[in-house]
Amino acid sequence: MNGADRLCDTLLINDVDVCFANPGTSEMHFVAALDRKPQMRCVLGLFEGVVTGAADGYARMADKPAATLLHCGPGMANALANMHNAKRARTPMINVVGDHATYHLQHDAPLTSDIEGLAWPMSNFVRRIGNPEDVGPAIGEAYAASLSLPGVTTVILPADCAWGSVEPATLAPTKVPALKSADPVRVREIAALLRKHGSRAALMMTGLALREGPMEMAARICAATGARVFGQMSNGRIERGAGRVALPKVPYPIDMALKQLENVDLLVLVGAQVPVGFFAYPGKPGRLIHDGCAVETLAAPGDDLPGAIAALADELSARAVAPAFIAEAAPANGALPTGTLDADKVCTIVSTLLPENSIICDESISSGRMFYAQCHHAPQHDYIQLTGGAIGEGIPLAIGAAVACPDRKVIGMQADGSGMYTVQGLWTQARENLDVVTVIFANRTYAILHGEMRAVGVNDFGKNATQMLNLDQPALDWVAMAKSMGVEAGRATTAEEFTRLFKGALSRKGPFLIEAVI
Amino acid sequence: MNGADRLCDTLLINDVDVCFANPGTSEMHFVAALDRKPQMRCVLGLFEGVVTGAADGYARMADKPAATLLHCGPGMANALANMHNAKRARTPMINVVGDHATYHLQHDAPLTSDIEGLAWPMSNFVRRIGNPEDVGPAIGEAYAASLSLPGVTTVILPADCAWGSVEPATLAPTKVPALKSADPVRVREIAALLRKHGSRAALMMTGLALREGPMEMAARICAATGARVFGQMSNGRIERGAGRVALPKVPYPIDMALKQLENVDLLVLVGAQVPVGFFAYPGKPGRLIHDGCAVETLAAPGDDLPGAIAALADELSARAVAPAFIAEAAPANGALPTGTLDADKVCTIVSTLLPENSIICDESISSGRMFYAQCHHAPQHDYIQLTGGAIGEGIPLAIGAAVACPDRKVIGMQADGSGMYTVQGLWTQARENLDVVTVIFANRTYAILHGEMRAVGVNDFGKNATQMLNLDQPALDWVAMAKSMGVEAGRATTAEEFTRLFKGALSRKGPFLIEAVI
Repeated sequence: MNGADRLCDTLLINDVDVCFANPGTSEMHFVAALDRKPQMRCVLGLFEGVVTGAADGYARMADKPAATLLHCGPGMANALANMHNAKRARTPMINVVGDHATYHLQHDAPLTSDIEGLAWPMSNFVRRIGNPEDVGPAIGEAYAASLSLPGVTTVILPADCAWGSVEPATLAPTKVPALKSADPVRVREIAALLRKHGSRAALMMTGLALREGPMEMAARICAATGARVFGQMSNGRIERGAGRVALPKVPYPIDMALKQLENVDLLVLVGAQVPVGFFAYPGKPGRLIHDGCAVETLAAPGDDLPGAIAALADELSARAVAPAFIAEAAPANGALPTGTLDADKVCTIVSTLLPENSIICDESISSGRMFYAQCHHAPQHDYIQLTGGAIGEGIPLAIGAAVACPDRKVIGMQADGSGMYTVQGLWTQARENLDVVTVIFANRTYAILHGEMRAVGVNDFGKNATQMLNLDQPALDWVAMAKSMGVEAGRATTAEEFTRLFKGALSRKGPFLIEAVI
Repeated sequence: MNGADRLCDTLLINDVDVCFANPGTSEMHFVAALDRKPQMRCVLGLFEGVVTGAADGYARMADKPAATLLHCGPGMANALANMHNAKRARTPMINVVGDHATYHLQHDAPLTSDIEGLAWPMSNFVRRIGNPEDVGPAIGEAYAASLSLPGVTTVILPADCAWGSVEPATLAPTKVPALKSADPVRVREIAALLRKHGSRAALMMTGLALREGPMEMAARICAATGARVFGQMSNGRIERGAGRVALPKVPYPIDMALKQLENVDLLVLVGAQVPVGFFAYPGKPGRLIHDGCAVETLAAPGDDLPGAIAALADELSARAVAPAFIAEAAPANGALPTGTLDADKVCTIVSTLLPENSIICDESISSGRMFYAQCHHAPQHDYIQLTGGAIGEGIPLAIGAAVACPDRKVIGMQADGSGMYTVQGLWTQARENLDVVTVIFANRTYAILHGEMRAVGVNDFGKNATQMLNLDQPALDWVAMAKSMGVEAGRATTAEEFTRLFKGALSRKGPFLIEAVI
């Protein structure tokens, strides 16, 4: 057997059994090894951004990493933007990047590049494999790091380490270090501060704190102390809907965010960062909390967040307190909008018709700003979203979620400008017959940038600004585009048409795209 | 005026008047400044790989850099693969990457990343702007570096350097350092070696050495000494066709390449590298010349290559010698293939019908292997190709070439797998009404990887290998895809259909795509 076989075996012994791939010549031995492992599910993306975005969506829903197969430095470069999003979501991921044979690097062949240099900015762990026997340890370390940091790991696989022989060995699952528990002294101090600040305190949470159980526990703490609870502006995954905590997130528009946090004098971080503006604006602050707000860290990113919340609840004797902020179900048979379609109507229809246990992949950007709040009262679902601001994550996220959860409906809320970044992902949805409904908000513009231009004082656009911010000449035909890649599709210009298409898409299995012209 | 205005003015005073762009929030002041400069042509790409690939194609044909506008680290990450190709082609390019305001970086906002770390592997020059008054000097330095290195330059523009005030100033064009001339002693030594080795010597050329004049001069040297002349495997641009030098390139298949160079005992480099295998293969050498072959450098990349060739010709008294290897014109009215279409027939039809003064953008990968040689005898044209092996360059290259040369027909020879990487570029072709015919070799597979799999000893593919190497389930409908982005298109399954569509595309202006099902 060779190093590539060992690579596959090390993944499989650790229950990593999905590989999103876009291979090249230097990975042929890896492909051949995968071919000998039918228990590994290999999913092809026609562009590397699809591959890592799908791996991100997969791990967010499967709670275990997928592997990816990427080709040399430039192939990995194409994957970096969605690695960035995954890194920001702290998604476990094992990227395997093929490289030239070790002895070939000296020749500076055309595809040679500084893979480590490219990988580090978007990885939490980078490791170059030194020889065939090093493949197993390297993949084991990456697996453990992906779950214990947690985060994005990148392993560089020289071709001769893949094709070189290794001794047969009996493999055992890799030991993953336990996540760090909360310091009891810290817990006691924070409990005291929460009691003191009452309604002027807030928890800021992300990561595994946003699953149903820990969120409910946090809501018991809030009921016991008067504190509020927020999610970060962007989060990897939130379990939500009626009967669960209606968790407000920090809004993107800076004035709204400042308003939301203006009365918070104590902010307790649970895996989250201090909230800051997505961008700087002239004359506005960078941090979204006021200067006098105290910041206390209950648990850092990568710590045992649910455990920390439970410990805090125990300290406050809050386990038996009824949780605050539990969302009620929306009234059944809510009226659906009618008439000319707009973004808000699309959001209302989707949230009203949302099927129980579905997964929402949100890259709706400006069009879907009201959507998150509307879904508080929808049937229970998972909400995963663009995390790092690198657009082009939505279509791939939906791929990964659907691969991880084949029995659940995945609904992609997709801005048109962002969707074009990784539009190739539609083909993978067709190829794998994934149960994804993609809703395209076809406003035919980078709408968010129109707002940002106004924010810098430009209201009348000339030719060059129009050329750079509008997508309307020619208008993209999303129905034809989807069909060209094997995805059935329809176009809606009225709310009634959208409702009909959306109901139809929900009633069938397999990918469907709706172009919502707004 | 602000830093962004100064940026535009510095570009314009240096005759950089095309900006390929994909802007984001941090670049709004740059967009607003561009809006005040109607003499700057702004071309929007719907993905950053389109932007830098187009800038590459533009500069190869315009012999001056374009600017690009990219958004933060992840936006630039999407642009890196085609920056890599441009770096390998030594194309002048000025990338302007917007970043957070200087004082906002400390907050680690979601889009924050190590832009310098990402840029360096694919740039020859990287510079972060420090304050508004630093914008002009930084852009000037980048402009000079882009032409004198020559190569890819990346300038990082913090938002507050764009929106901050600058003092009005009278700008002058930036002085560009002269390219390095050949050392007369070196020229004399190499002339003596060429005389000594006769037909066992060869020139290996790239860059500006592959324009008509210097190639003809090199061919006079060959006629005078018996030497041969080759182009690198991949080159930025070659002026070719009947009446010009029929320049052989080093072939991609390693056995063919070794065969081509087996009788070369002296290799004289003219801006070129020692030829090496594109990849390493078990048991085959990395360098494509034999161990006893002497290597002498007449001129390094970035030196004055035409000047060095001229000096060598003078030293050899070769200026008056009739050049070797001049291609004759193909017989007029050559017969066109008929019957079921295949890749070779497509190549034959295109080379036979090629219009005078057209520009070929070649990313045909395995399908077009015969094409380059067939075009020796076609009417005179420019040939630009994928240089760094980072696929997804073809459609953008054609955009840039068409923007640079609006009066010339651009013909994109495009593999289907590679074409999907930056398929969004078709929209820009439609938006700008660029005169580009794109020929898609629709073999519905990564054909090159089938060959590479056989090279590693795998002939029977199982499910996983098939899943990763074939694009046939579902087949991509390139005609629908092109039309969805506003590009007219047709499909050919026979040679007659292809001929009819290709003639039709040549007879009209504007973008057209032909899906050649092979």
